[in-house]
Amino acid sequence: MTTNPKRGFASDNNAGIHPLLLEAIGKANSGHEIAYGDDPYTAAAIKTIKKLFGDKTSEVFFVLTGTGANVLSLSSVARSYNAVICADTAHIHTDECGAPEKFTGCKLISISTPDGKLTPDAIRPHLQGFGFEHHVQIRVISISQPTEMGTVYTAQEIKALSDLAKEYNLYLHMDGARLANAAVHLNMGFREITADAGVDLLSFGGTKNGMLFGESVLFFQPGISDDFKYLRKQSMQLASKMRFISAQFESYLSNKVWYINAQHANKMAQLLLKKVSVLPKVKITQKVEANAVFAIIPHEVIEPLQKKFFFYVWDENRDEVRWMTSFDTTPEDIDGFAEHLALLLS
Amino acid sequence: MTTNPKRGFASDNNAGIHPLLLEAIGKANSGHEIAYGDDPYTAAAIKTIKKLFGDKTSEVFFVLTGTGANVLSLSSVARSYNAVICADTAHIHTDECGAPEKFTGCKLISISTPDGKLTPDAIRPHLQGFGFEHHVQIRVISISQPTEMGTVYTAQEIKALSDLAKEYNLYLHMDGARLANAAVHLNMGFREITADAGVDLLSFGGTKNGMLFGESVLFFQPGISDDFKYLRKQSMQLASKMRFISAQFESYLSNKVWYINAQHANKMAQLLLKKVSVLPKVKITQKVEANAVFAIIPHEVIEPLQKKFFFYVWDENRDEVRWMTSFDTTPEDIDGFAEHLALLLS
Amino acid sequence: MTTNPKRGFASDNNAGIHPLLLEAIGKANSGHEIAYGDDPYTAAAIKTIKKLFGDKTSEVFFVLTGTGANVLSLSSVARSYNAVICADTAHIHTDECGAPEKFTGCKLISISTPDGKLTPDAIRPHLQGFGFEHHVQIRVISISQPTEMGTVYTAQEIKALSDLAKEYNLYLHMDGARLANAAVHLNMGFREITADAGVDLLSFGGTKNGMLFGESVLFFQPGISDDFKYLRKQSMQLASKMRFISAQFESYLSNKVWYINAQHANKMAQLLLKKVSVLPKVKITQKVEANAVFAIIPHEVIEPLQKKFFFYVWDENRDEVRWMTSFDTTPEDIDGFAEHLALLLS
Amino acid sequence: MTTNPKRGFASDNNAGIHPLLLEAIGKANSGHEIAYGDDPYTAAAIKTIKKLFGDKTSEVFFVLTGTGANVLSLSSVARSYNAVICADTAHIHTDECGAPEKFTGCKLISISTPDGKLTPDAIRPHLQGFGFEHHVQIRVISISQPTEMGTVYTAQEIKALSDLAKEYNLYLHMDGARLANAAVHLNMGFREITADAGVDLLSFGGTKNGMLFGESVLFFQPGISDDFKYLRKQSMQLASKMRFISAQFESYLSNKVWYINAQHANKMAQLLLKKVSVLPKVKITQKVEANAVFAIIPHEVIEPLQKKFFFYVWDENRDEVRWMTSFDTTPEDIDGFAEHLALLLS
Repeated sequence: MTTNPKRGFASDNNAGIHPLLLEAIGKANSGHEIAYGDDPYTAAAIKTIKKLFGDKTSEVFFVLTGTGANVLSLSSVARSYNAVICADTAHIHTDECGAPEKFTGCKLISISTPDGKLTPDAIRPHLQGFGFEHHVQIRVISISQPTEMGTVYTAQEIKALSDLAKEYNLYLHMDGARLANAAVHLNMGFREITADAGVDLLSFGGTKNGMLFGESVLFFQPGISDDFKYLRKQSMQLASKMRFISAQFESYLSNKVWYINAQHANKMAQLLLKKVSVLPKVKITQKVEANAVFAIIPHEVIEPLQKKFFFYVWDENRDEVRWMTSFDTTPEDIDGFAEHLALLLS
Repeated sequence: MTTNPKRGFASDNNAGIHPLLLEAIGKANSGHEIAYGDDPYTAAAIKTIKKLFGDKTSEVFFVLTGTGANVLSLSSVARSYNAVICADTAHIHTDECGAPEKFTGCKLISISTPDGKLTPDAIRPHLQGFGFEHHVQIRVISISQPTEMGTVYTAQEIKALSDLAKEYNLYLHMDGARLANAAVHLNMGFREITADAGVDLLSFGGTKNGMLFGESVLFFQPGISDDFKYLRKQSMQLASKMRFISAQFESYLSNKVWYINAQHANKMAQLLLKKVSVLPKVKITQKVEANAVFAIIPHEVIEPLQKKFFFYVWDENRDEVRWMTSFDTTPEDIDGFAEHLALLLS
Repeated sequence: MTTNPKRGFASDNNAGIHPLLLEAIGKANSGHEIAYGDDPYTAAAIKTIKKLFGDKTSEVFFVLTGTGANVLSLSSVARSYNAVICADTAHIHTDECGAPEKFTGCKLISISTPDGKLTPDAIRPHLQGFGFEHHVQIRVISISQPTEMGTVYTAQEIKALSDLAKEYNLYLHMDGARLANAAVHLNMGFREITADAGVDLLSFGGTKNGMLFGESVLFFQPGISDDFKYLRKQSMQLASKMRFISAQFESYLSNKVWYINAQHANKMAQLLLKKVSVLPKVKITQKVEANAVFAIIPHEVIEPLQKKFFFYVWDENRDEVRWMTSFDTTPEDIDGFAEHLALLLS
Repeated sequence: MTTNPKRGFASDNNAGIHPLLLEAIGKANSGHEIAYGDDPYTAAAIKTIKKLFGDKTSEVFFVLTGTGANVLSLSSVARSYNAVICADTAHIHTDECGAPEKFTGCKLISISTPDGKLTPDAIRPHLQGFGFEHHVQIRVISISQPTEMGTVYTAQEIKALSDLAKEYNLYLHMDGARLANAAVHLNMGFREITADAGVDLLSFGGTKNGMLFGESVLFFQPGISDDFKYLRKQSMQLASKMRFISAQFESYLSNKVWYINAQHANKMAQLLLKKVSVLPKVKITQKVEANAVFAIIPHEVIEPLQKKFFFYVWDENRDEVRWMTSFDTTPEDIDGFAEHLALLLS
């Protein structure tokens, strides 16, 4: 088999498995374990997560995909006539092929933002129609940390959204598919930017930061996850051999793989930023706070550049592209990329 | 971590990963690959599958879970007002927490059978209401091969169901979560008992026969899978790092892991049958053709036996239990189990 | 326009509007009223219903169709992973084109019965899988009063089902599309056979007994209907000019139209029974307790008979037909029908 | 019963039934007719509609509510992973409590407009993601005629949207809950502004223009309505005694009730506009082309004015209100209203 020799900046999930996590899978591959999560690996991983995320962590569940984590989080607290407020760049709004609508029945109310970040001021005008049966009933504010634009909410910004949510009896959901990258950027623990900042429901991902597969849903409020286990099974998100997700999460957290990987990816994004921002005709469009660099580049260089280093066009209407670094991005990758781009631009 | 020292007969997914398949994951863990399936591992695995299942194999898709494979198969050909005929023991009917109904909107019309096998005669009386808008419109006949009762359809039996399906313009779906065990029992290739026998849609599983995770959906008719890729994403069944499913499938088929594992599991089921059928008060209730043994045993021994070797009670109303063997079941496991059961019965 | 000169026994909804109810519509047709139910006609009708059904009647909602009433009842108390137990002849199972599955996501667990009536003994073996995430979680027992087979539950029989429901923490739903016919047969008030017999949720119909259109959902337990108004709107069952449903219900109950009509229809069914049961080759298959007569008749007379008097074949497999009487059936209709049948049979 | 003595401008469905339409119901109330639409009234009404809307009218179906008509139109051509483009003021987006999402599974992509009217230029930037499985697949452009802002598309404007739809292989749906008001404003026939202008699917309403209840769905393209009858039943939109909807439609069209009523309502809106636009502090915010007047008025007069004449606040954030006229609005109603408003403003 000839595998792809290209390396690229398409997404952090184009990278493979971190060796320590693959090792954890191998170590868990011994003997029989009850399928579907009633096993000691899962118990141990949940214990570790609860310790890291603090006392408010009422329940932890492992699922298969990031979309699954988001949809199931929302399903837990929203019925079909509810609505979810999100940024119009949110993964749930733009990258899940309508899974939230299909599975929850809810409407997503999307709000335009300059940087992927919702604010109380941007949300308030949408908080209408409560009690009016013709209107969907807003039930959740969902934010991504970091955002899909590579920006990061501060703990204070999250707290302000949580306060607004509480004022209107809403839940605050965080899509933390790349939560590690945000924590590293802020130099804070998971707990401070989730439970302690007022998040009620968290999609906490691992796949984009070095796992083979594995995502989780954390609840920071008792009583709202009572039917999660049925929803998870019914939504096809219950892993059969769950121990292999759990063992990865255990190693991811206990061995600080999350930190090592996210720190590296963030650092590579800064390096990439440094190298490309000096190039002519490259206009950086977003602050680089996690592991993504957004830029507008001349239309005619996009395709030639993609041929050598794959990446996605973010906004076709203005030739804005997204370059993502990952735990295995090397300085050489970046040098090669920046040089090639420079060549194409010259 | 103290892992579970118990070995048991609960399910073949309580076993771990076959070493060759874990090795395949490791080998694929190099460099960047486009996520979500546009990678050479996936292309290679699809090619191998198409070769094995024959020319009629129009499309192959990898998914995450067996429930996902079934629900997505049905979604491809059924709209919400359609219905699916299945045995009342079918996995889609009893073990998927209503996922088929929730995701497809369809009604499952379940038929009681003595051995898990549908027959044209059992189905015919249900083929009513076509064209009548108050009735759901039957669209699919779904069978499990082997059945959930451990019995195996012959190619002729499948053909007869396919003929009936064609007569009524229905699709024939096969849940092949354990297809390898059926093929081994029949001593036939996959092709002969699927595409050649008239199956239109197949859930072809790997997890229960040694994979970490990985299932697939095969179509044996062009034109009915056009929107599968959207349905897969929307139903949260699109694996991000798909190469690691694909690499397993490639090894599973090319290295005959499917055959080795299924042959072993089937053999162990025969050994188990031999050992327990001679015990007093053990009444074998189904033919043992794949890797499951069903038996009625005295109510009072069930719990003590489960304490040492975990397994599930199949029918609480008559103390019928299910014992499943897997690729890693050993003759010693069976000896220990049979001896313990004998002791409890004495 | 040449309207249909034929009269028939197809269904009680082939009849038109009772004059008093049409008059009520006309009387309500004056001035402006807030649409969607915030009007004095609706308030008055709800008050009347609450009085008739007793103190336990926590909430009353008007909807558009019988299927709507059933689906919304179930939606109020069941989430997508729940299941509903019903007779396999239940309207929700056989005549709603899968609406309950589509809208609630739930599985219907259908039980075969000789006469359309569920019993605790028939239900008990199905009460399995509680707390097991692979199984749907049974949440509702749904019965039809009268049944689709024209039989009527006694208050004691309903109470026994309610006791079973309470034992398992289930809700008891009654499809009372023809509740008036049952009440007349039993010579009891609505209250005694619903709230007082332990029913939690009731679909209370009017269309089949003389209304133009109009059905209602009654709750006999506070706290379970809190989101009904949103579910009703979202399920397209909120009538715009609701006053015209409400005004009919008010007249239906205050003027005893329900009683007059149901008594007449039941009486006509008895007359029909008397006339046809003496004919050769007519085998009555169900007790006639409400306004339906079920019979097996020779295959070759079905079509010729339908040509003159329309009716439905109930079970094609055994030539069982259903004849329904309605509030406007006349003794002459029955004489003509019986004579024609006699002729065809001779 | 003390009925509401207030008259108001809340909505055209606060009015009652036009006498000719109530008379049509009475005339149809004779003898037995097959329920659910297989009756001569329905056949006649469909024939009349087809004549008026022209040869392209491939199929006509009657349904119960406007939300039902919209949701079922969309269901016919969209699967769950599709998306529907609409104005952010569209009824399907703001007033149906999420019914489109719940029933179709689709995402609504809402576009901000100054006047409720979509244009090709406003839509084009959203036409992205075709063939990309992470994105919903856009399938329908849905417009309201007249818009929810009381403005009316010209035939040319509709044609331009139809051309765009064809270019991208999309369907053009029109929500014509008040189509009569648009036709009167444009002084054109129904056909010219629907089928001939390139509309593929039409929700054609009657309730807001004088019917008791009754909406319809028209298809202007063969082959896309094949499963409508099942979807209608499954979505609880199949009227039992359908003849009474059909008879209204027949009279509505044959007796020009549609024209008389809409002409009157539109004229009353012009009168209202004339009377209020001269008042100080009343700022008219939209062109008055159908039967709605939008205005910003001082916050403090809203509640007192509502007490005497009910109406809805359209945009709480800027005190914009909506006043609707109906077929039974009188010049005296308007005089009284304008005088009272003048008094409050003074």
